Amino acid sequence: MSASSPVRCKRLLRLLKKQQLEAMLVSNPVNVSYLTGFTGEDSLLILTKDRSILLSDSRFETQIQEECPELEADIRTSGQSLYQALSKLISKLNLSGIGFEASETSFAMWQQLDSDLKNISLVPTRGLVEELRQVKDAGEIAELREAIEQAEKGFAVLQASLVPDMTEQEAANELEHTMRRFGAKGASFDTIVAVGTRAALPHARPTSRKLGEAGFVLIDWGAVNQTGYHSDLTRVLWTGRLSSKLTKVYNVTLEAQQKAIAAVRPGISCREVDRIARSIIENAGYGKKFGHGLGHGIGRDIHEGPRVSPGSETILEPGMVITIEPGIYLPEWGGVRIEDDVLVTKEGYEVLTSVPKELEISRWG
Amino acid sequence: MSASSPVRCKRLLRLLKKQQLEAMLVSNPVNVSYLTGFTGEDSLLILTKDRSILLSDSRFETQIQEECPELEADIRTSGQSLYQALSKLISKLNLSGIGFEASETSFAMWQQLDSDLKNISLVPTRGLVEELRQVKDAGEIAELREAIEQAEKGFAVLQASLVPDMTEQEAANELEHTMRRFGAKGASFDTIVAVGTRAALPHARPTSRKLGEAGFVLIDWGAVNQTGYHSDLTRVLWTGRLSSKLTKVYNVTLEAQQKAIAAVRPGISCREVDRIARSIIENAGYGKKFGHGLGHGIGRDIHEGPRVSPGSETILEPGMVITIEPGIYLPEWGGVRIEDDVLVTKEGYEVLTSVPKELEISRWG
Repeated sequence: MSASSPVRCKRLLRLLKKQQLEAMLVSNPVNVSYLTGFTGEDSLLILTKDRSILLSDSRFETQIQEECPELEADIRTSGQSLYQALSKLISKLNLSGIGFEASETSFAMWQQLDSDLKNISLVPTRGLVEELRQVKDAGEIAELREAIEQAEKGFAVLQASLVPDMTEQEAANELEHTMRRFGAKGASFDTIVAVGTRAALPHARPTSRKLGEAGFVLIDWGAVNQTGYHSDLTRVLWTGRLSSKLTKVYNVTLEAQQKAIAAVRPGISCREVDRIARSIIENAGYGKKFGHGLGHGIGRDIHEGPRVSPGSETILEPGMVITIEPGIYLPEWGGVRIEDDVLVTKEGYEVLTSVPKELEISRWG
Repeated sequence: MSASSPVRCKRLLRLLKKQQLEAMLVSNPVNVSYLTGFTGEDSLLILTKDRSILLSDSRFETQIQEECPELEADIRTSGQSLYQALSKLISKLNLSGIGFEASETSFAMWQQLDSDLKNISLVPTRGLVEELRQVKDAGEIAELREAIEQAEKGFAVLQASLVPDMTEQEAANELEHTMRRFGAKGASFDTIVAVGTRAALPHARPTSRKLGEAGFVLIDWGAVNQTGYHSDLTRVLWTGRLSSKLTKVYNVTLEAQQKAIAAVRPGISCREVDRIARSIIENAGYGKKFGHGLGHGIGRDIHEGPRVSPGSETILEPGMVITIEPGIYLPEWGGVRIEDDVLVTKEGYEVLTSVPKELEISRWG
């Protein structure tokens, strides 16, 4: 159990109280891990004012003792299904009602509880733990810094190793392998290595196209550290001669990114940050070529709150960590996206990532 | 769309008919992919007697055209939530009822549909597509053979590269990297490399313990190929002098595995195959040290049906592919598990994996 787990549980209890709830069933494993420090699977957390109980099975008995000794563990027997054990546990707690995660609880689980627990009202809740997770504490920011360092060290090795004959797929493999050598658990998502026209697809998968086949390559990558925190960056590297088109598209994207980053501070809305980047791209005539939101929170999930998009009303708070990643995608030519990870501080912002992004030095080969 | 998709959809329709259902909403992305060949995310399949409709968004428009051109695509607009679009689509189909996947549909999705679709009965179904997926067709068996080949080639390189100073973590990284070089999408699960006493934990995570620190190391690994099919193997390698304890434990485990494999044929129950291995281990006095089921199906999931365990009534059929992986775990000493992937054939079985497992030649260093 990390030192911050009791604080996080208390915060959740405060959110529950606002909704007149005395207890909560947490079924999303990422949320369970956030609240308890437990890193295993197939386990559910029940949180009440006085108790934190982890319902698990014998595979994880030792691990629970090691990772979260303060937690009550309810180890179900092998003959008992998870749902049966859950109903039994809840019914013993003398509750009149319990909240559950509406988007993270299957219909099947809900149906079983609903039929077993006649006298307890099951109350669907939405995004409560996710709301807490939007604001990172000091320990989490340190974890994110580590995931970023792993990603950046890996990228530095890759960049130094690039040769024209290497394929997108080989580059993606090398990058993931190198990040692991620097301590990462793995890549935080399927690495994108997209040469030339392939870069026009925001979610391109690596192919056997060779890096030397076009004048530039877009790389979107990140590391997940051993605790499960994710980093997320994008850079475009060019080779040969720098075309005027790449120069133009790149500089518009970079300006949009820099102005948006400069606007990050507590109190500004996510939609406003998105608007700042989007208007620069629109004014340059590429408005329709930027078809996704400006960014998203990162943490235990690679995509989490807050969304930074035209429709996002969320107000930035100190401790939020978001990506800022404007892009311009021109079918048949290619695309440019530049992405950094930004912490909202009390005073404004801190860019956590540090891979150089000036076009002049983003050269390889 | 793979050539076999229409056949799979027809089989599902036959299962639906037995339950008096005229349509089905498929929300598990692995099931959607199995039925359509589509490999993207956040998309739902609606299957009726006459139509197969994939509800997706603009990110995947091109990909759907490429991967499954015969499918009707319903591309929701960016302003429309998935649930809204889904309700709208279903309500246009003139259905009186539709099945949904009870374990793969969130309470939130069900609640939205239930409130939007007053005149259509929503019928929970359990494991219908999973039941079909238990029996692999020829194309799937070829995919599994490829995933096995990637895993075995990777292991051969790792085995040739082992040095006493290498850590469990480094060995796991090397293996994953090498499997990718042989074309794998990645490891099919977190690779287990467990030196000496660590091998007593069936789900050990790689640490910084060095391979040379004990007389043997257990490696449990697999590859997932680009289409998403998983392989799963376990071997124990020894170094230095072969102890009599390892010899004894290994040979009991190997005999249990070989006898269980030899029993695989259409018509036998999974519990009976489990019993054959388990009784050999029990007779050797290690019954309580074999605390998990004998095996599981592999395919698009690393764990899928049929389960091969004491409680599994499933009868083996040609086309099922299962792991056979007995283990003996002795706390403070270590453990042995030997695992191969076995296809049920019309005549009996075919062991798809081929890494040698005789103790005498399972030596490194």
